[in-house]
Amino acid sequence: MSYTYDYPRPSVAVDCVVFGLDLDEDDLEILLIQRLKDPFAHGWALPGGFMQMDETADTAARRELEEETGVTDVYLEQLYTFSDVARDPRGRVVSIAYYALAKLSDHRIRAATDAENVAWYSIRKLPRLAFDHKAIIDTAIERLRGKVRYAPLGFELLPPKFTLSQLQRLYEIVLEQQLDKRNFRKKILSMEFLVDTGEHEQGVAHRAARLYRFDRRKYLKLAKQGFNFGI
Amino acid sequence: MSYTYDYPRPSVAVDCVVFGLDLDEDDLEILLIQRLKDPFAHGWALPGGFMQMDETADTAARRELEEETGVTDVYLEQLYTFSDVARDPRGRVVSIAYYALAKLSDHRIRAATDAENVAWYSIRKLPRLAFDHKAIIDTAIERLRGKVRYAPLGFELLPPKFTLSQLQRLYEIVLEQQLDKRNFRKKILSMEFLVDTGEHEQGVAHRAARLYRFDRRKYLKLAKQGFNFGI
Repeated sequence: MSYTYDYPRPSVAVDCVVFGLDLDEDDLEILLIQRLKDPFAHGWALPGGFMQMDETADTAARRELEEETGVTDVYLEQLYTFSDVARDPRGRVVSIAYYALAKLSDHRIRAATDAENVAWYSIRKLPRLAFDHKAIIDTAIERLRGKVRYAPLGFELLPPKFTLSQLQRLYEIVLEQQLDKRNFRKKILSMEFLVDTGEHEQGVAHRAARLYRFDRRKYLKLAKQGFNFGI
Repeated sequence: MSYTYDYPRPSVAVDCVVFGLDLDEDDLEILLIQRLKDPFAHGWALPGGFMQMDETADTAARRELEEETGVTDVYLEQLYTFSDVARDPRGRVVSIAYYALAKLSDHRIRAATDAENVAWYSIRKLPRLAFDHKAIIDTAIERLRGKVRYAPLGFELLPPKFTLSQLQRLYEIVLEQQLDKRNFRKKILSMEFLVDTGEHEQGVAHRAARLYRFDRRKYLKLAKQGFNFGI
């Protein structure tokens, strides 16, 4: 038996908001591409493109991200689907938006396919953006700010080994608020999934601080037992 | 200038997981429809249908919900977009899923258009479901359980005036765990957006309890000042 459905159909695209943390500049950044083609040729936009008929939206998001920016192996999560009727001058295009968290040092970015350029931009100094990509970014920032408080997402933005100062700076940058150092350390060290590596940071002028790592397996075990992460 | 895009396109549908709380039965329920047409004719499914070209996904979700079940004026929020390649036997259909919270007493449900029947089902006794609707429901339950802890969503499931016992039962039913009565009352009464109406419940055999209401304006003001809701 076959089911026909002959009404007009929208196109379906994916777009990715990739966050990176620049600890030297105390800055949260987003990866943008400069569009090669119309509409918005030479304008800045989120990496993304049309979903193919034989792939899921998740697969499309990872494929477009790799094709246009070279970025692979990031934490990626669906954000929200944007469906305003006039959001794309090409006609009806629904965009399934994702956000990703990248370790800045891991990724050598390079523009390709539909992108003539790719660059990290501070969320405080974004260029004018194509389509409704500013609204997508605003939604992603809001989600990130909400979620870092109750899920151990932040570690995805840090190098595998980090100091407690770096961890605190991460939260201060993302949440845009100062945290009390003593309270922060007390709270974070009470979380047993933060493991002292026994190592210290290298090549610093000040007294070398201890390096910690996030033990995901331990976290998942605690979460199963009812532990609620909270910053 | 026109931009042509001639690749094949998926169909885009919306589906709604409507939650209702049955305080008499201590039960969390979901509104299901029985399908009139193939595929899955006479099978139970979520209310939903295809998005039209001149409406957003939000509009489509509210329209389908009203058309198929008669339910209007509910708290509605986008949940997740489901895009498995083989999720619909009619071909490629992407579904933008929503979840809604209904005050059970407000809604007289009635089946219409593509639904031959509509009914509330306990989440503990769901029938066999069409498409990937079981997976959509599982995602919605997980979202609801997570979000009632850090956002004042639960009030959407209660009558406008409620006792503290009802409020506690709400959390116990949704979270599937017992809460300590003294701690719960202390925590909830410290939240200044819970307002004593001065009224008491009517027609009960036991001592009539005070009725409270949720003051959304006060909550939003406190949230702006940095207050974090937490159960």
